[in-house]
Amino acid sequence: MSADTLTDQHTQIRLAARPDKAPGPEHWRVTHDPVAAPQDGEVTVRTQYISLDPAMRGWLNDARSYIPPVQIDEVMRAGGVGDVIASADPNFAVGDMVVGILGVQTAATLTTKGLTKVDTRLAPAERYLGGLGMPGMTAYFGLLEIGQPKEGDTVVVSAAAGAVGALVGQIAKIKGAARVIGIAGGAEKCAYVVNDLGFDACIDYKNEDVRAALKEHCPDRLDVYFDNVGGAILDDVLMRLNRGARIAICGAISNYNDPANMSGPKNYLQLLINRARMEGFVVFDFAPRYGEAVMAMAGWAQEGRLKFREHVVEGIENFPDALAMLFNGANFGKLVLKV
Amino acid sequence: MSADTLTDQHTQIRLAARPDKAPGPEHWRVTHDPVAAPQDGEVTVRTQYISLDPAMRGWLNDARSYIPPVQIDEVMRAGGVGDVIASADPNFAVGDMVVGILGVQTAATLTTKGLTKVDTRLAPAERYLGGLGMPGMTAYFGLLEIGQPKEGDTVVVSAAAGAVGALVGQIAKIKGAARVIGIAGGAEKCAYVVNDLGFDACIDYKNEDVRAALKEHCPDRLDVYFDNVGGAILDDVLMRLNRGARIAICGAISNYNDPANMSGPKNYLQLLINRARMEGFVVFDFAPRYGEAVMAMAGWAQEGRLKFREHVVEGIENFPDALAMLFNGANFGKLVLKV
Repeated sequence: MSADTLTDQHTQIRLAARPDKAPGPEHWRVTHDPVAAPQDGEVTVRTQYISLDPAMRGWLNDARSYIPPVQIDEVMRAGGVGDVIASADPNFAVGDMVVGILGVQTAATLTTKGLTKVDTRLAPAERYLGGLGMPGMTAYFGLLEIGQPKEGDTVVVSAAAGAVGALVGQIAKIKGAARVIGIAGGAEKCAYVVNDLGFDACIDYKNEDVRAALKEHCPDRLDVYFDNVGGAILDDVLMRLNRGARIAICGAISNYNDPANMSGPKNYLQLLINRARMEGFVVFDFAPRYGEAVMAMAGWAQEGRLKFREHVVEGIENFPDALAMLFNGANFGKLVLKV
Repeated sequence: MSADTLTDQHTQIRLAARPDKAPGPEHWRVTHDPVAAPQDGEVTVRTQYISLDPAMRGWLNDARSYIPPVQIDEVMRAGGVGDVIASADPNFAVGDMVVGILGVQTAATLTTKGLTKVDTRLAPAERYLGGLGMPGMTAYFGLLEIGQPKEGDTVVVSAAAGAVGALVGQIAKIKGAARVIGIAGGAEKCAYVVNDLGFDACIDYKNEDVRAALKEHCPDRLDVYFDNVGGAILDDVLMRLNRGARIAICGAISNYNDPANMSGPKNYLQLLINRARMEGFVVFDFAPRYGEAVMAMAGWAQEGRLKFREHVVEGIENFPDALAMLFNGANFGKLVLKV
């Protein structure tokens, strides 16, 4: 127990109002409430990095989903990594580094059930929010279990410079895909995807005709599409499916800020023509197998076959601005907030 | 060879112009060309019944699909059943009854490769265009292979009084679905679906709020949706999916007559929330297994567990009007044209 730390000045970012469209500063309020001392089976964790994820936008809507929405006045839900500063669980010692749903706050007292210890000698703390965390798990299981690439396949992934997309393409290559095509916004991201990550090509959706570019880069059509964006790009991809293609629906960030005007994939009947399927998934379902994915990915990283990239924004007070970066494409790699 | 019959007056319905929206009389022209005598490996078939199917609408569009479009001036493609009136293939005798792609014409000389002999002592000829033909195969394989119902599941099917839908619901019941809900247009069709076919309930989409009715009739949500219609009903169903649900995309008749204004399922992200999938199929892929389906379905019919219903329109000259019935919901059961 470190009573000093517990009485430190703490900061929480709470949901003040539900956004209809893009969340802005007006949807949040800051509090400086004290942090309770841990009870039996609890620890207090000092947050070091907070994860910023597209899924957060969905948690703000008052609608049935795979987890309940964040309530008004509640601390914003977020994954985080931090060190234990007080413990009432014999399995966790002060100084242990842990990941879990810490929330957007400088410290949290919470049950140890949802916490996992991590080893910062193997990878920097923020990586456990990225490639070795939820985005990594999402890429690994979404691609391999839902996309099911076979050797020689053509694999396409949107948001290819993002936390998940960058890993999807690299894992597809490692697994023997003949051709991996990314879709990203802007020349700089596309150059990174091809030159640093080793994709075969990257389509700049901001400056290229995506449908024409898919035709050029997928001469044998495409077998797997890992979709992070939805919208018009999904429709373009649907027009280029190979017979028996698999679309893994990971997200649809192009739609998240305007749920009332959600548009569906108007070319979805291409699924029929091509005997193809579109399937959604939620990474939490694969939790019992996270260990397998971390081992595989850490191994590939050690062999130099898998690269990670984090985009660090400093200061918890910058949470609203940092969140907005996800939706305007300003982030480059896994976006985290350094507390 | 029956030279007399070959020189009879014959009639063909040919595509005169491609429709943008609903096909009308202006898109067809009638010819009375003679029918050639069969060459080696060919027979001449006198058409008795012509099949009318929603898929025909797609064949009129000049677009890539699972089979090439019908060309301008070509005889309209159609399944048919008829008797052999002249044969140059030792395996086919005059008088044999066959099914195949006969086209919308009173007689056709064609290779025997695509023809299958049928036994009209077991079932009337027109049934080989319905429950024991393509619609039957579509219902059987689409439900069992793509929908994959498990015992205790809730299964929903649209166009439930139609050629395919009526069979899907009955087969689901036979296979142990706990609850089978139809969606159809009008009180008469709904009464038929429940009282004659044994569905647990049928939602009248013309007079009911489909989303509210699905909530009422699917208290445990739905596990399988067999979709023949697309459009707003598909969106309503997406809001009621159970975890791991399967949507078999058989067709989207609500969209066929307005391909340029095709709308996509705006609620498709429910696939993600519910870890569900949407998969298209084309019945032809199951051709090697048609025998299995015919045996199973004929057996169930004999046991009184499976009912068939055909809707017969007389006169080949009524083809344009009969085709329109499919799209305004005027048919009741498998629609066939009696020549």
